[in-house]
Amino acid sequence: MLIDSVIGLKKLSSRLLSVNIDTRNRALAAVSEAIVENKSYILSENKKDLDSALNINGSLYKRLVLTNNKIDEIVEGLKTLISLPDPLGKMQMNRELDSGLTLSRYSVPIGVVGVIFESRPDALVQISSLFLKSGNCGILKGGKEAINTNRALFKIITDAVNSVSDILGSSLQLAESREDINEILKLDQYIDLMIPRGGNDLVQYIKNNTKIPVLGHTDGICHLFMDGDGDIDLGVKVTVDSKCQYPAACNAIETLLVDEKIAERFLPEVQKALNERNVELRGCKKTQSIINVNKATDEDWDTEYNDFILSIKVVSNLEEAIDHINTHGSGHTDCIVTQNEQKWDNFFMSVDSASVYLNASTRFADGNRYGFGAEVGISTNKIHSRGPVGLEGLTIYKYKLTGNGNIVDDYATGKKSFTHKELQCE
Amino acid sequence: MLIDSVIGLKKLSSRLLSVNIDTRNRALAAVSEAIVENKSYILSENKKDLDSALNINGSLYKRLVLTNNKIDEIVEGLKTLISLPDPLGKMQMNRELDSGLTLSRYSVPIGVVGVIFESRPDALVQISSLFLKSGNCGILKGGKEAINTNRALFKIITDAVNSVSDILGSSLQLAESREDINEILKLDQYIDLMIPRGGNDLVQYIKNNTKIPVLGHTDGICHLFMDGDGDIDLGVKVTVDSKCQYPAACNAIETLLVDEKIAERFLPEVQKALNERNVELRGCKKTQSIINVNKATDEDWDTEYNDFILSIKVVSNLEEAIDHINTHGSGHTDCIVTQNEQKWDNFFMSVDSASVYLNASTRFADGNRYGFGAEVGISTNKIHSRGPVGLEGLTIYKYKLTGNGNIVDDYATGKKSFTHKELQCE
Repeated sequence: MLIDSVIGLKKLSSRLLSVNIDTRNRALAAVSEAIVENKSYILSENKKDLDSALNINGSLYKRLVLTNNKIDEIVEGLKTLISLPDPLGKMQMNRELDSGLTLSRYSVPIGVVGVIFESRPDALVQISSLFLKSGNCGILKGGKEAINTNRALFKIITDAVNSVSDILGSSLQLAESREDINEILKLDQYIDLMIPRGGNDLVQYIKNNTKIPVLGHTDGICHLFMDGDGDIDLGVKVTVDSKCQYPAACNAIETLLVDEKIAERFLPEVQKALNERNVELRGCKKTQSIINVNKATDEDWDTEYNDFILSIKVVSNLEEAIDHINTHGSGHTDCIVTQNEQKWDNFFMSVDSASVYLNASTRFADGNRYGFGAEVGISTNKIHSRGPVGLEGLTIYKYKLTGNGNIVDDYATGKKSFTHKELQCE
Repeated sequence: MLIDSVIGLKKLSSRLLSVNIDTRNRALAAVSEAIVENKSYILSENKKDLDSALNINGSLYKRLVLTNNKIDEIVEGLKTLISLPDPLGKMQMNRELDSGLTLSRYSVPIGVVGVIFESRPDALVQISSLFLKSGNCGILKGGKEAINTNRALFKIITDAVNSVSDILGSSLQLAESREDINEILKLDQYIDLMIPRGGNDLVQYIKNNTKIPVLGHTDGICHLFMDGDGDIDLGVKVTVDSKCQYPAACNAIETLLVDEKIAERFLPEVQKALNERNVELRGCKKTQSIINVNKATDEDWDTEYNDFILSIKVVSNLEEAIDHINTHGSGHTDCIVTQNEQKWDNFFMSVDSASVYLNASTRFADGNRYGFGAEVGISTNKIHSRGPVGLEGLTIYKYKLTGNGNIVDDYATGKKSFTHKELQCE
């Protein structure tokens, strides 16, 4: 059953290319209206999920809750997405290979993409709308805790899209069970990309069980390095936001690195501010010699707490900080607080992470904040798309070569030679 | 042993970022000189491989042979590569998120990349030089038939690079055994990408046995569609080149699709031309009713012959051709011969392949011919890099955010809001 419908999606994906941006935007507008109209129905379905979820842990429960406010944010997000330029059909290169033989390249959708996401029901709308805007077929699998909310949202979305375009309306599918996932993972011939959004266990499970390319992030072990040439007040402010603004997020910091030149002045200040937010601190020996905190073990440097806990390490210099980040970090988002331009350059060059920051909270690493309208996930892969993945990350390209009977033999025998002249992109 | 050296490469990869383009180009120039100087040594080592390879099949043997001419081509390729612009440090976006908070994005190397390549020894030089130019660390595994040639080339290359830059000289490693590969495939923590260049079996084996992302192509089942509005002479010429110029290549066509409106006039002409090149033809029923050829079975539509064999199918129209290509093709390179602009637009839009051609031989699908200097492989993946993979395909990007104490809480609480203003790229 599921296999048939996935094969159907694959066939549909090339027909989706004929759906122009006007239609895709009108479909998004219809979704936006339908969500507003069905607000109370969505909230009542969400209530069902919440009633069955009374036993799940606090942060999971919190993510499951939809409110009037959250629905307004969803609708706002859709409006932003509609206003963004068409990600498809962009000419990326234009080159004369020889007189009368022209190579160009255009952005196209990836094709069929599967996303497995956590219990946040707003994720379903975000992901669906990114797929609709980028002309991709999508297989969506949400958390089972949100099953009623997801079903309601999915029906509202597809009905709205169908009222604008049948083809587009058929481009999304909802998968509901773990068994569905296991079937899907075998379909590497028909699915071009899997994006698991969830804990390390889920991502590893997906990677272990499929030949489909996987885009995602395992851990979010982010760092803030307080450099000796950094401003102490600024460092405290950015540390507190990076840790406390939403500690369950993957872009929250887990480890604070402090230059020993500034440690004695900085640590008491940051401790005071973090104490006010009830953050548990765990420090290395040097940290413990300056402020009174629990001992950090080796394990702490590799741990994503997702909670109000922060490990602290005093380092001798910038190089040690970079080395620690590249060894223990997850390549997600890392920040330096400094007023020294040269050190910032070194830090940016050498830290091998998707997002590298100067004097700003790591919490900015997010598709909405980056101006992508929404994100389908955050990638710590080193290929295709890195950092927050928005519309552009859901596209690839296609080469177009136009000739007039040109053959390779003429070039192999030296009768003709390539000019390789860059032409303007239209 | 190998694990240690791969971990070493991972550590080295962030230091490679400090090697500027001038040094990288000087290293390539040194390689070019060293290859010229050691020509006779390289040829004598190649002779050893050829002497041990007398029993292998003709096309494999042919690929193994180095000649003065081929070495000249290698040196020519290095010169082209030196002349290409730096693929690293290119600003790809620049955006004000808010006053004083700026997001930009720069191209960077992927990191550590493993390539498994066939017996062609010129591949080792091409791949190494692409890695050197793009600042990637490389693990190279060539065919065991070419072991003496590859060892000689590898030593010449690394010695030459070392004379320019130690760091760069340490960035390449040669793996020699199948056991090495099996060890490498486990190192997904340290290797960012695997590129197998070889048959379907090799690629499937790699995909089945690793969590490292894999870039490559399985089959090369390419098509030419002779449309009813196409020029017959042009169609014959392009068909012959696409099939015969080098049938062992993945970009050679395996199936010729012919619009029934033109079949009676076109088929006899193309048969005559292909007979002259001793191409075995296998046709569908309709084809057999027009010209005298063997019968094509269902299996033929899914077969990469890599040989002077061509299957022929008569189709009712453009849509059937597109459907056949999207069903049986491998998403590599497909061509339409037509003078009808509208049909070409449809064909380009709907054929889901890396390269889609009008009136030109599929044999043009190649990194050198596209002007990439060289190619590390050809990809039929739908993510990261599609078609011939050159320098750009060996890069990814990194986001840079510069602020002055900016925190997310100000935006979450509505105290501030994002401007998301596009700035000029430098």
